Amino acid sequence: MQLIQYPAQQQWAALQQRAAAQQAQDVEQRVQQIFEAVRQRGDAALLEYAQRFDGADLASGLRVSPEELAAAVTQVPSELQTAIRQAHANIWKFHATQREEEKQVETMPGVSCWRRAVPVQRVGLYIPGGTAPLFSTLLMLGVPARLAGCPEVVLCTPPQPDGSVNPVILFTAHLLGIDTIIKAGGAQAIAALSGGTESVPGVDKIFGPGNRYVTAAKQLATRYGVAIDMPAGPSEVLVIADESANPVFVAADLLSQAEHGPDSQVILLSDSLTVLEQTQAEVQRQLAALPRAAVATQALTESRAILLRTPEEMLYFSNQYAPEHLILAVRNPEELAEGVTSAGSVFLGHLTPEAAGDYASGTNHTLPTNGYARNYSGVSLDSFFKKITFQRITAEGLLHVGPVVEIMAEAEGLQAHARAVTLRLDAIHSASSTPTASARPAAHS
Amino acid sequence: MQLIQYPAQQQWAALQQRAAAQQAQDVEQRVQQIFEAVRQRGDAALLEYAQRFDGADLASGLRVSPEELAAAVTQVPSELQTAIRQAHANIWKFHATQREEEKQVETMPGVSCWRRAVPVQRVGLYIPGGTAPLFSTLLMLGVPARLAGCPEVVLCTPPQPDGSVNPVILFTAHLLGIDTIIKAGGAQAIAALSGGTESVPGVDKIFGPGNRYVTAAKQLATRYGVAIDMPAGPSEVLVIADESANPVFVAADLLSQAEHGPDSQVILLSDSLTVLEQTQAEVQRQLAALPRAAVATQALTESRAILLRTPEEMLYFSNQYAPEHLILAVRNPEELAEGVTSAGSVFLGHLTPEAAGDYASGTNHTLPTNGYARNYSGVSLDSFFKKITFQRITAEGLLHVGPVVEIMAEAEGLQAHARAVTLRLDAIHSASSTPTASARPAAHS
Repeated sequence: MQLIQYPAQQQWAALQQRAAAQQAQDVEQRVQQIFEAVRQRGDAALLEYAQRFDGADLASGLRVSPEELAAAVTQVPSELQTAIRQAHANIWKFHATQREEEKQVETMPGVSCWRRAVPVQRVGLYIPGGTAPLFSTLLMLGVPARLAGCPEVVLCTPPQPDGSVNPVILFTAHLLGIDTIIKAGGAQAIAALSGGTESVPGVDKIFGPGNRYVTAAKQLATRYGVAIDMPAGPSEVLVIADESANPVFVAADLLSQAEHGPDSQVILLSDSLTVLEQTQAEVQRQLAALPRAAVATQALTESRAILLRTPEEMLYFSNQYAPEHLILAVRNPEELAEGVTSAGSVFLGHLTPEAAGDYASGTNHTLPTNGYARNYSGVSLDSFFKKITFQRITAEGLLHVGPVVEIMAEAEGLQAHARAVTLRLDAIHSASSTPTASARPAAHS
Repeated sequence: MQLIQYPAQQQWAALQQRAAAQQAQDVEQRVQQIFEAVRQRGDAALLEYAQRFDGADLASGLRVSPEELAAAVTQVPSELQTAIRQAHANIWKFHATQREEEKQVETMPGVSCWRRAVPVQRVGLYIPGGTAPLFSTLLMLGVPARLAGCPEVVLCTPPQPDGSVNPVILFTAHLLGIDTIIKAGGAQAIAALSGGTESVPGVDKIFGPGNRYVTAAKQLATRYGVAIDMPAGPSEVLVIADESANPVFVAADLLSQAEHGPDSQVILLSDSLTVLEQTQAEVQRQLAALPRAAVATQALTESRAILLRTPEEMLYFSNQYAPEHLILAVRNPEELAEGVTSAGSVFLGHLTPEAAGDYASGTNHTLPTNGYARNYSGVSLDSFFKKITFQRITAEGLLHVGPVVEIMAEAEGLQAHARAVTLRLDAIHSASSTPTASARPAAHS
């Protein structure tokens, strides 16, 4: 970690800089080819890619069978099953509080407006495979999808070389009641979800992390009218530590971020030089014992420990940086939290490690990176809903709001808009002035 | 309007097709050049473009002065002022109901999670100029921006040839308390908002409609880390009319959509051939009297009147099409509305013209087009917020959730994550076994 003491304000922007995103042209071109192949040849292309990229022969089919699903459950240690069930319960509980009730409001007498949360009808969840299957991400996406009531949930995850899918992924999918599970990974999975193939249903919105091929594929999917959860980038943490912070804990939190990947972003702010120095020493000590020490070491070369003067300065720096994860390792974290304007998720106090939110406390771990916390929220129940507005106007209501609309539409030069109101007002007036009013269609409201 | 009777299901996809978006390469290149010029030369470039594209000499500055703002108010007829104030009140009332209260939830004893809506700090509103200034759109964007409490709101709108801004736009801005008003239009305005210039503050999120240059510029802005409200396309309406519908009203609604532009999309569904035929005749009759008849006529050539068999069929067709506006001109609109899964905004009954929602009923008129109602919501209070999650865990809480995190992190091969918990649990255990526990930092929660 680089230690920087009291940098001048004009240096801050440079210190807040993330490593430039590698937007390799060849990645985009490769992904485009994969999209074309999948859109043209469907399942056949997916089978070829499984052979080529995953070394898997999927002659028995692209979809996980009910038997495979049932068998997987028996392969997961019961201790892990219990842990996943507990995390599921916590995530469910927190996301359930995000439900909004439908509120009908009369803006004027007879003018009723309301908004209804309607689930996105078809969602696709992408879960990377490899040595460390991210079943936690499946929980983070699957729970709100289920809570929202999305009628169709499709899971794509790459096959292992023997053609199977990691059993913990399958156990988690089973727990979530997801039974459309496709053995496809990488850009080809995203291509399949965005247009559909014989075996893979096309979807309206795609969620989930992945490597740069998957990220490029998700961007490409948006050109086919498919929505995605959010722009993706390397994971990041910013820790604000005052003199009450425990350097052992702070170091552990920095390392748990750094182990994600060599491009993970780690920033530590403190108004105590002692805390900064002790934390640096602790990082070195704990690093030695980590299996993923090589990855973490690489991430730490680019990371910064910065000495600032006051809590206000640290908060200001953090809000400008807009970190994905923000840890407030300070004496009065609630007070500091009040001033947070840009962050994905915030962890308060010395006993709240980011790892808790990554797995099991209940909050979502799919969060905006790369400064997008300035303008995006993390995944939540909302991400699986559209909010549709509704309105109903009665004859009385149109007498109130109609003239307002007529005047405004005329002023915008949109006479047909005005007339859609005028013709109805005429009908209401003539209906109310004739005794047979109720028989005229114009009097319906 | 083309009349299609009882089309077979396999024809539906073709009938739901929108006109292909014109993604002219030269537009993109032109916009890229404008971005580069504005990013390099700032205000100087904006002044040149104002001269070239708007014919306006802005020697007196790019920003609207307090004097200009004050003078504008006197130029707006009092009847129009009153109408705008009423619309403002209705939009405010409806959007205020979208406020969510912060709910803290204990997912396990000692594990508290909550979510806070924090305003996007800097938002840019783009309002096109020209002959018909869209002050209604300024209301639709400005009201939720104000309700959300966005600290910085920047309005860009093109100058008129005399260097002034349309007084109704200024009146509306004044009503909204927006005083950062920039005389800049087109792609150059979006470029300025996305990076900032000497006179124009850079923003985090850009809202507002525009021509294809503005649309391309908003897409380009996303590459600079700026968020946008939603993908834009031509406006559209789908009307479901049963035999109770009044052809005069239905025709007026179709025309109020068609007058927007030659590429407006208009679809009418009915299970009554009489209603379809009478509506077609009414469209011709009303068209004759419209100032924008030429535009509407062109839009209507591509529009369709489709005879289907049942309300269920009509609803299914509409959900597949996912219209921006959906009018339910039927006897029991509430019943049909229950089944709407994809639409931007829905208008129930014979006396609820789309024009009411366009201007003054209270709902937002910035809505997803081009089928994006399948996966996007219209602009709402949410669009001006980020939802940040927070959590605080006590020693008791970590004893509950910690072991769950340790097991899951180990199973994902992320040992540093597990260790961030283990080190804290160790400290809690050793603190509780020593009498001096309270003096140790590890015991802070």
